[in-house]
Parts: sequence; structure tokens; C-alpha cells
Amino acid sequence: MRILSGIQPSGKLHIGNYFGAMVPMLDLQHKGEPYYFIADYHSLTSVSEPDVLRANVRDAALDFLACGLDPEKAVFFRQSDVPEVNELAWILSTVCPMGLLERCHSYKDKLAKGFSPNHALFAYPVLMAADILLYDSDLVPVGKDQKQHLEVTRDLAGKINEKFGDDILKMPEPFIQESTAVVPGLDGQKMSKSYNNTLPLFGGKKALRKLVMRIPTDSTPVEDPKPTEGSIVLDLYKLFATEADYNQMIADYKAGGFGYGDFKQRLFDAYWDHFEEARARREELEQNPQLVEDVLQAGATKARAKARIVLDRVRGAVGLA
Amino acid sequence: MRILSGIQPSGKLHIGNYFGAMVPMLDLQHKGEPYYFIADYHSLTSVSEPDVLRANVRDAALDFLACGLDPEKAVFFRQSDVPEVNELAWILSTVCPMGLLERCHSYKDKLAKGFSPNHALFAYPVLMAADILLYDSDLVPVGKDQKQHLEVTRDLAGKINEKFGDDILKMPEPFIQESTAVVPGLDGQKMSKSYNNTLPLFGGKKALRKLVMRIPTDSTPVEDPKPTEGSIVLDLYKLFATEADYNQMIADYKAGGFGYGDFKQRLFDAYWDHFEEARARREELEQNPQLVEDVLQAGATKARAKARIVLDRVRGAVGLA
Repeated sequence: MRILSGIQPSGKLHIGNYFGAMVPMLDLQHKGEPYYFIADYHSLTSVSEPDVLRANVRDAALDFLACGLDPEKAVFFRQSDVPEVNELAWILSTVCPMGLLERCHSYKDKLAKGFSPNHALFAYPVLMAADILLYDSDLVPVGKDQKQHLEVTRDLAGKINEKFGDDILKMPEPFIQESTAVVPGLDGQKMSKSYNNTLPLFGGKKALRKLVMRIPTDSTPVEDPKPTEGSIVLDLYKLFATEADYNQMIADYKAGGFGYGDFKQRLFDAYWDHFEEARARREELEQNPQLVEDVLQAGATKARAKARIVLDRVRGAVGLA
Repeated sequence: MRILSGIQPSGKLHIGNYFGAMVPMLDLQHKGEPYYFIADYHSLTSVSEPDVLRANVRDAALDFLACGLDPEKAVFFRQSDVPEVNELAWILSTVCPMGLLERCHSYKDKLAKGFSPNHALFAYPVLMAADILLYDSDLVPVGKDQKQHLEVTRDLAGKINEKFGDDILKMPEPFIQESTAVVPGLDGQKMSKSYNNTLPLFGGKKALRKLVMRIPTDSTPVEDPKPTEGSIVLDLYKLFATEADYNQMIADYKAGGFGYGDFKQRLFDAYWDHFEEARARREELEQNPQLVEDVLQAGATKARAKARIVLDRVRGAVGLA
């Protein structure tokens, strides 16, 4: 069972990405044959500085490997190391009604937010369909925001198969995560890069501690019981603490006599410890860029071999040489 | 000076294609370094039968080689043998405003004619831009209908250079043919596949003669002088006859005493003789499909080598690995 997932290399990962996308992806690597790629072609639509794009790709590779992506289990590669995906995207375009793309929320939302629309933004769902279909993927983990794009993918696969023959393209199934952790941002809204309220996975201890210490709290005096409802500190702590420690914090909230600074310190310690192993591994990998590159190259070699088979099948079916 | 031109493999070539596009292309091969490709990716937007597409590509290759395309002078290849073009198209898409494509006449015209619009039809000018820019082309022969698309190409090249550095992409110049022959169709309208009024380049003698013999004429009696103005037979004859023969026919029109059947026979003979050598060469090539394939493969090898250089330059500039 081939599982396909893409990683947007859009800058430093935060714990919202971690619990929302990365942990489920890392869990899934034990349940099938994962193809995980760093979507640098897609990033080109938003990142216009070449050095930033390269750094983001490098960071995404380091982050995933540090956090437990196992290159023995997962085929891990850079999207642009399999340029074949663009050829499949063109072929899919020839059966893709304009209306299908015009109706995509992600494009309409970006328009509404005042993005100056470029063609790649519009064509994004076609490239995403090619990303998936190029590897005969069985299963695609999707969040709410990507559900419609998987529908587009299935539509396009269906059109190719209807027009050129059954089983040219494998019909992928969505894998809807049962319970995706909602990670609150440092200001209580959903954690998101665009809200500028994120807690990064990695960074200097002092800087990260500062972020945690600045989480807004109410002005209940130290001695008094504190409201547990809607406490950002508690909600974040839950993600990192053992159940016992979490319950202890709730008890301490209710008992009074503990200041928010104390709770924040506990949160920081738990968060810092959570990534201790990953941090050490990341530092090691950072010293060895060739190792990371070798992993990505080996992944690309495997992915290209699979892509070649699928693409030859499609090319033959549509009438290319 | 690199000259870039694409050939739409849209079925049997007719003499409108021949005088309008093929002859100028064949002339140009002595004036620079021509890259001529058979645009099968583009054809996918309109041809949905794989066997028809393959046959059309084969016919286009045979037609051009038979009519004098010299593989020693021109790099002659199938578009889909250089799939790199799709990657450049994606990169160009990321700097291509939607408005630029929405304003393209060819798309608007196709919409107006009731074509059910697919995304490839819309994205066609981006792929065409990639076709041109992938080879550092200097000169692109364009007819009226393609002038706007070359403007799009220049726009996109300019945007890449502005954003990522001068001289990433070479700015191509249009080459407007000074006098393109207007070839009348068998019914007097412009010769065009869509009007179903074409005279093919190649075909069985009987069938072709029948087409010529059916050209509509007026009912002037044999003995009377015939009007030369607006005579389809005369206009077509001019394309094939020597000046002396053409003047003779005009004189015979004016003198009277000759029937239209006579004039049509002269037209047919001149047309048939004109392609005699090409016809023989084509029959020979048809017997030797491997030779044709070898020519296309050798062309693709040269084209890919050039494409690789340009694409690596672009990839590096935009931040891909």
C-alpha cells in the first residue's frame, strides 16, 4: 500500500506542523510504503528568493530526518528531483476542464486574500494530481484544506482512464486523519505561520524560552486559583507532558499558589525535552550535509524508477512515442 | 542564430500549410541553426485518439523530410522526446499572471467557437514559451495568429530575468514573414482544414485529380472568354506553374476556346509534377521507418543536450537543487 504525502518547504517548521502533519506522517511510515517528497516546485509559487527556497528545502529534510523519518522505510525525495511529474501534469491538463480549477477553494481564497494570481497558483491542483498519480499511490493523507484537491486528482485519473483505458492511472483514496491535534498558537488562535504565533520545533534555547514566557495570561494573583478553561499554556502543555504531569498542572491551577511563570517554565521544559533527541540528531545531520543529500538522492532514484513505469504507461496510452 | 519553429501534427498537410509555413521553414534552414519540432504535446489538447496522434506525428516527419528538411542542417525532433520542456513550463507558470493567459486571443476564440475549454488549451502559451526559451532561440518565425503568443513568451522571459538575474533566458525575436502566400481553398475561401477545402500534399493520383476537377467554376461556354478575376483555378495554378505557363493560361482564359476542364487538367499536372520528387522520397522513407525514427532520435539527443544547459541555468537561478 503506497502512501503519498508532500511536505511544503515553507520555512521553519512549528509545532502546529509537527502535531498536525509530521507525527501522522511518521506514524504512517510503519503502515505501508510511504513516498514523502519535499514540494519545492510548489514552493516556487510563493518563495521568490532562490537562497530562501534552498534553505527551506534543506531545513525540511533535516527536520524530517531528525524527527524520525526513516529512509529505509520511506522513499524520501525532493519533488524537483523527479521532473517527470511536470510531464504527467501536462497530460492531465489536456483532460482537465477549466471549471474544475476555477472552482478550487484554495485558489479562490488566495484571490480573496489579495494575492496577485499567477498561473502556477491556478494550476497547482493539476501538479498535485500528478504528484499523486505518478507513483500509483493508494492512499493520500489529507487535511480538510486538501480534500477538494484530492477530488480533483480522482476526477483527472477517472477522465484519463475513461478516455484511454481502464487502469492507466491508479485511483487514490483519501486517508482522513481521525483526530488531528489542534495546536493553539502563542496567542490562542490556531497556530499558523500567517498569524505569526508559532512555536518552532528547533531553535536556540534562550529565544524559544522567551517565546513561551511571553504567552499572554490573565492577571490572577499568584495565590489565587487560575482558570483552566482556555489556558493556552495548559493546552500546549498537554501536547508534551505525561498524563500525570498534565493532571498535576491542572491541580496546581485550581489550587492556587503557583504563578504563570512557573507553569510556563514547566511547559518550556516539557517542550524542550520532547525534542531533545531530535535536536541532537538534527545537529549531527547539519554537520553532515552530504549524508542528507545522499538520502534525498537515493529516494529520488527509487521514485524516478517508479515514475518511469507509470509515465511510460500513460505516454503509450495517450499516443506519445 | 538559432531559429525555432514548431509543427502541429494535425493530420495530412495541405498545400496551404506547404506554401504558408513549410516552404519558409525549409528556406530558413539555410540561414541559421534551425530547431524544428513536431508539437505532439500540443496536439494532445485536440487529438484524443492515440493511434491518430501517432500517425499524424509520423506523417509530419515524413512530409518534412520528403519536402527537403535536411537533418544535417536542422535539429528535427519530436516535442515529447524532450520532456524537459514541461519543467520549464512550470517554472514560467510561477511568474505568469493569469491575466496574460486570459487575454490570449487563441483561447478566447476557441471559447467563442464553443470548444469545451480544458486547462491545456488555456496553458498553451506557457508551454509554447517554454518550447522557445528552452533552446536559447534567437528567432521565431510567426504568422499573425502566433504574434501574441510570442509576446507572452517575451513577457515571461523578461519576468524571469527581472526576478532572478539578467541573461537567465534569452529574449527571442519574432521573424515576420515578408510575404506569406495566401493559398485559396478549393471553394475559394482561405485553405484550411476546418473549412474542409484543402488540397493535400500527398495522396493517390486519382483521388487528388478528382479534387481538382471538382473546383467550382462558372458556366461560361467553352468558346467564350473566361473571367480571370477570382478564378480559383488560376490562383492555384500560379503557385505551381512557371511564369510563362501562368501567362499562357491567362491568355487562354481571355481568348476563349478552352474549357475549364482543360485548365483544371493543366493545374493538376503542374501540382502533381511539383511534388514528384518529394513524393518519390516520401515513398522511400515510408519503406524505412527506422531511418525516420533515427533522424528524430538524433535530433532529440541534440535538442536535449541544449535544453539541459538552459534548464540547469534556470533551475539554479530560481533555487531548485
